[in-house]
Amino acid sequence: MKKSELFRHYNVYSDLAVEAHEILRGESEQEIFGVRMDEEQLNNINVTTITIENEQGAQEIGRPQGQYITIDAPELHKNNYDLHKDITEVLSQKLQKLLNLTDNTSILLVGLGNWNATPDALGPQVIDKTLVTRHLFEYSPTELNGKLRKISAIAPGVLGVTGIETAEIIRGIAEHVKPDLIIAIDALAAGSLDRIGTSIQLTDTGINPGSGIGNKRTQINQDTTGCKVIALGVPTVVNAAVIAHKCLDVLFEQMQKNKTFTKFSTELNCINSQFITRVLDETFSPFKGNLMVTPKEIDSLIKTTARIIAGALGISLHPGIDSEDFERYLQ
Amino acid sequence: MKKSELFRHYNVYSDLAVEAHEILRGESEQEIFGVRMDEEQLNNINVTTITIENEQGAQEIGRPQGQYITIDAPELHKNNYDLHKDITEVLSQKLQKLLNLTDNTSILLVGLGNWNATPDALGPQVIDKTLVTRHLFEYSPTELNGKLRKISAIAPGVLGVTGIETAEIIRGIAEHVKPDLIIAIDALAAGSLDRIGTSIQLTDTGINPGSGIGNKRTQINQDTTGCKVIALGVPTVVNAAVIAHKCLDVLFEQMQKNKTFTKFSTELNCINSQFITRVLDETFSPFKGNLMVTPKEIDSLIKTTARIIAGALGISLHPGIDSEDFERYLQ
Amino acid sequence: MKKSELFRHYNVYSDLAVEAHEILRGESEQEIFGVRMDEEQLNNINVTTITIENEQGAQEIGRPQGQYITIDAPELHKNNYDLHKDITEVLSQKLQKLLNLTDNTSILLVGLGNWNATPDALGPQVIDKTLVTRHLFEYSPTELNGKLRKISAIAPGVLGVTGIETAEIIRGIAEHVKPDLIIAIDALAAGSLDRIGTSIQLTDTGINPGSGIGNKRTQINQDTTGCKVIALGVPTVVNAAVIAHKCLDVLFEQMQKNKTFTKFSTELNCINSQFITRVLDETFSPFKGNLMVTPKEIDSLIKTTARIIAGALGISLHPGIDSEDFERYLQ
Amino acid sequence: MKKSELFRHYNVYSDLAVEAHEILRGESEQEIFGVRMDEEQLNNINVTTITIENEQGAQEIGRPQGQYITIDAPELHKNNYDLHKDITEVLSQKLQKLLNLTDNTSILLVGLGNWNATPDALGPQVIDKTLVTRHLFEYSPTELNGKLRKISAIAPGVLGVTGIETAEIIRGIAEHVKPDLIIAIDALAAGSLDRIGTSIQLTDTGINPGSGIGNKRTQINQDTTGCKVIALGVPTVVNAAVIAHKCLDVLFEQMQKNKTFTKFSTELNCINSQFITRVLDETFSPFKGNLMVTPKEIDSLIKTTARIIAGALGISLHPGIDSEDFERYLQ
Repeated sequence: MKKSELFRHYNVYSDLAVEAHEILRGESEQEIFGVRMDEEQLNNINVTTITIENEQGAQEIGRPQGQYITIDAPELHKNNYDLHKDITEVLSQKLQKLLNLTDNTSILLVGLGNWNATPDALGPQVIDKTLVTRHLFEYSPTELNGKLRKISAIAPGVLGVTGIETAEIIRGIAEHVKPDLIIAIDALAAGSLDRIGTSIQLTDTGINPGSGIGNKRTQINQDTTGCKVIALGVPTVVNAAVIAHKCLDVLFEQMQKNKTFTKFSTELNCINSQFITRVLDETFSPFKGNLMVTPKEIDSLIKTTARIIAGALGISLHPGIDSEDFERYLQ
Repeated sequence: MKKSELFRHYNVYSDLAVEAHEILRGESEQEIFGVRMDEEQLNNINVTTITIENEQGAQEIGRPQGQYITIDAPELHKNNYDLHKDITEVLSQKLQKLLNLTDNTSILLVGLGNWNATPDALGPQVIDKTLVTRHLFEYSPTELNGKLRKISAIAPGVLGVTGIETAEIIRGIAEHVKPDLIIAIDALAAGSLDRIGTSIQLTDTGINPGSGIGNKRTQINQDTTGCKVIALGVPTVVNAAVIAHKCLDVLFEQMQKNKTFTKFSTELNCINSQFITRVLDETFSPFKGNLMVTPKEIDSLIKTTARIIAGALGISLHPGIDSEDFERYLQ
Repeated sequence: MKKSELFRHYNVYSDLAVEAHEILRGESEQEIFGVRMDEEQLNNINVTTITIENEQGAQEIGRPQGQYITIDAPELHKNNYDLHKDITEVLSQKLQKLLNLTDNTSILLVGLGNWNATPDALGPQVIDKTLVTRHLFEYSPTELNGKLRKISAIAPGVLGVTGIETAEIIRGIAEHVKPDLIIAIDALAAGSLDRIGTSIQLTDTGINPGSGIGNKRTQINQDTTGCKVIALGVPTVVNAAVIAHKCLDVLFEQMQKNKTFTKFSTELNCINSQFITRVLDETFSPFKGNLMVTPKEIDSLIKTTARIIAGALGISLHPGIDSEDFERYLQ
Repeated sequence: MKKSELFRHYNVYSDLAVEAHEILRGESEQEIFGVRMDEEQLNNINVTTITIENEQGAQEIGRPQGQYITIDAPELHKNNYDLHKDITEVLSQKLQKLLNLTDNTSILLVGLGNWNATPDALGPQVIDKTLVTRHLFEYSPTELNGKLRKISAIAPGVLGVTGIETAEIIRGIAEHVKPDLIIAIDALAAGSLDRIGTSIQLTDTGINPGSGIGNKRTQINQDTTGCKVIALGVPTVVNAAVIAHKCLDVLFEQMQKNKTFTKFSTELNCINSQFITRVLDETFSPFKGNLMVTPKEIDSLIKTTARIIAGALGISLHPGIDSEDFERYLQ
């Protein structure tokens, strides 16, 4: 029974490369050709960088070549100001490295997701807290040079609200605004509960829904927009199939460890993917798995992480602002 | 393995009396002393009324004596205008019977829940769509008499936002406003997925969190407010434990039906409540079950049902408005 | 002292062609070459159509050639359901005539304005209440044909929020969505208080900020988007200069009528535009006239008129929906 | 022609004691018995304290006895982070002096005003940015003691939204929550344009609408709530009558200074209050003066000042937080 098949059935996948990598390596922790993983500690915060170095690595892990940086802090979504300052600093360091800005770089921020559905509202909330400056340059460019960079921002809403693929909207705007760089912020779906509100993922590959299987129309990357796209996200939900599947995993593991169920253990290998799919189909009826699991305090999780990301964007994008001042350009 | 024990561990329960009744009766569908169930069809919509007639019935079902009316329509949350008109009419008929208004009845509407967390925002959204009139009576009472009734309304926010138990806020306000009747609207937690966005529950017993086990401080009913409290709600979430539990139920059922797992079947009775609790604890780590499951389109589900409830309240509360005009006093 | 010069100084103008026409004609009510005005009564509602028929008329009135339809109803912003039904019907009739839809016309709705500033939030609120359908056609076109038309919608936010000219965003999106028609909804500035919340203007000339003096970059019309643009708006504010100017007008008129001020009357013609400009400059200090006047109940004015416009759009855009059903596709 | 009569006609008054004091003293700048004014400079910011010391002073100035502190900074509403830090520090110093907190003081924050009308949304936005803690003390009081104080908060909405006088709601809640202190935050109406977004007023007399002429029912003060009430506000609007009146004042002044209008000057004293009232009545028709004037960028003015106030409240209310950390407890 392969997790990946099952998850494909439910259109479930993790938006986190670090999770995809973990699943792929499995318990053996074997190396994957073309994929490198580096770990480091910054301000006591774990940072994992997955680098997909070639086409074979990209195929294996189902994601485009590039860097995927994950910043992990279990207390991220809690009300812990000192930790937030530390995370903000780490995030802005990593952002600056990826962004590689010159004085005149102009940036389009894109807040993806649905502002009307709290678990999906991270992107729009970051935009709401961010200072836009592009229009100011029209009137007083010399004053601003060296202090602020040209930032524009949009939170276009989701397909159900606009009737238009978000990627098409972004492409249309990018063709007129002609930014040097796009940074897209989005709420992510994780593959396990303990990622919710505890990780930030940063990648230079853009947004490629469905782990690269997504069609061209829905991708937001260099190919489709004509400029480098950095994506920044925080997992806020898991698909309900993740919960159900984990529940079965734990059950089978516990039963195997327990002498009471020795007979069952012999039958365990008869449980195949089709069987599990049937079980889950019935479990999720009438919703076909289009269900998300999210913590009750989702509103404060979104508020807190939006503030950290907007703060880190302020430090990273504007020269001369350091991490002591990370609230300086929060709106 | 008793579902009720397990659910108590996870602080899971259904807000729907009709589900509590179903679980209690079990597959045998035995009658419960002191509890009566009536079913009817109105406009092709199923209406189930559970009446808890005496203290013994209340004990059994874990809810106060009174009526619990459930209006069921699988398409409730879909974009189906004709159905919505029919549901609005049925809901307003049932409301009028429960409310038993005189010309001078004054009503305080209470929108419970958190407007910042979409799955919990039904109550505040209904308040937002409702016409309040109480203050108009101060200036032109004679004009309004016989056309409108005195309506006041509040959406006080949740404990995490105010630091105050909602019930205390309502009590304080009711002591000053002195309404004849309170109608409290709330998003509910169901015990099964197929109730999400498909049922409306209406009861004359008020809000008694935790199925009557809740402490006095959190109850909003005649005892605590001094006036009759009608509660009106739509299930918008289930606790994640419901999903996990259903998944195990379905698994065991499927395995018992399947010849491949005959050995397992003999061991099935060794699976007790403690064992399942351990499995679920590990499944939900690190969240201890404080997780909710909700459909992706939660924003449109809330918007649609809020509109139906606000429409039905308009018809029921104001004399001379009939169901043809149900949008008349929507805001 | 010419009103027009003064207003230009304060960047004040009326968004309503009917007002521009009135000012131009002056008290003599002389005809303007190339401009036709027709008046009619529909459902007891006044409808005035200004048609600018040639380039000379356009020059005179400072607006592009085309039709400008104004629907007037003093009670528009009040809570009067029967009137709202009538206005909705008139508006949808006029819309249908202008739109001239075929079965396959696809429409992009644009909600202009700032959702964070209530007096400017009409456009975004109309979008919020509107059903979008364009994406549904991808999955089930045959079911929908003949019932719904292809609607997409966007509320892009204002320059201060995005850093991008709205017109550029719309152009970019239109190039990808390729609608047959754009309908832009906006809160308007009137030239007199009695237009606030009492008129709806409908025009087939698009959005041409600054009465045609606006630069290309800010126009949203056939030239800039490649498709016909209908604009729909309700006056919600007047510039503070309008108030101050009217106050002076009334003063001078009253003084001329009053025998007490006979000496003053002889000096009145010495009051010239420069003098008035100085008075107003000092009055508005430190704001330079960038001030708007709006009624206290601006929130309910916006809510009410957004509902009427969204209702009329529903009737006009979708075949087989009549005015009895105007709430049918309100969200 | 007395300004005060005219303004009473239009129900216009300034919420700022410093303005009422200024008008009362007139150009002669005479001292008023029972009223003291002190001025100081803190961080280059002007602070004016009006102390009404006895009943005679209260009668004269039309406000209850107590302190009225006004912090003035013309750049308050601009995007100037360093200034905001300075203002936050000054405000928190002044707050701490007025509040005179002990370790166990519990505080109820009240956000007055209408969240749906931007110019009136300051109070609700401050509440939205504030950490509430009262409920946390129930679970872990010892951990929190000495670090945080007990804060509860409510933004009840306005009469048009609830049908209930806000003062009644606050009284009802205060009777249950039993705070030692209430802090009410509100958007204010100024008597002159240059106060909009440039002043913060702080007073220990509570909220007394209509400058003390208001009826008991609408007051929020020690008498009506049983505990000390601090009020904190920022002017965000002026009544349109203020503009019109200033315009006439400036006109008459300019005409008197100008030799062209010597004849008029002799007639000027014939312009009495009734005459001006008639002029303004016609000017404001059909709105009867219920119009407010507000800057176009009202959304960013509200956002910015809400952030400063919420920051200062955090520093003042929680021990051990200093002004370097003023964002620490912003939400």
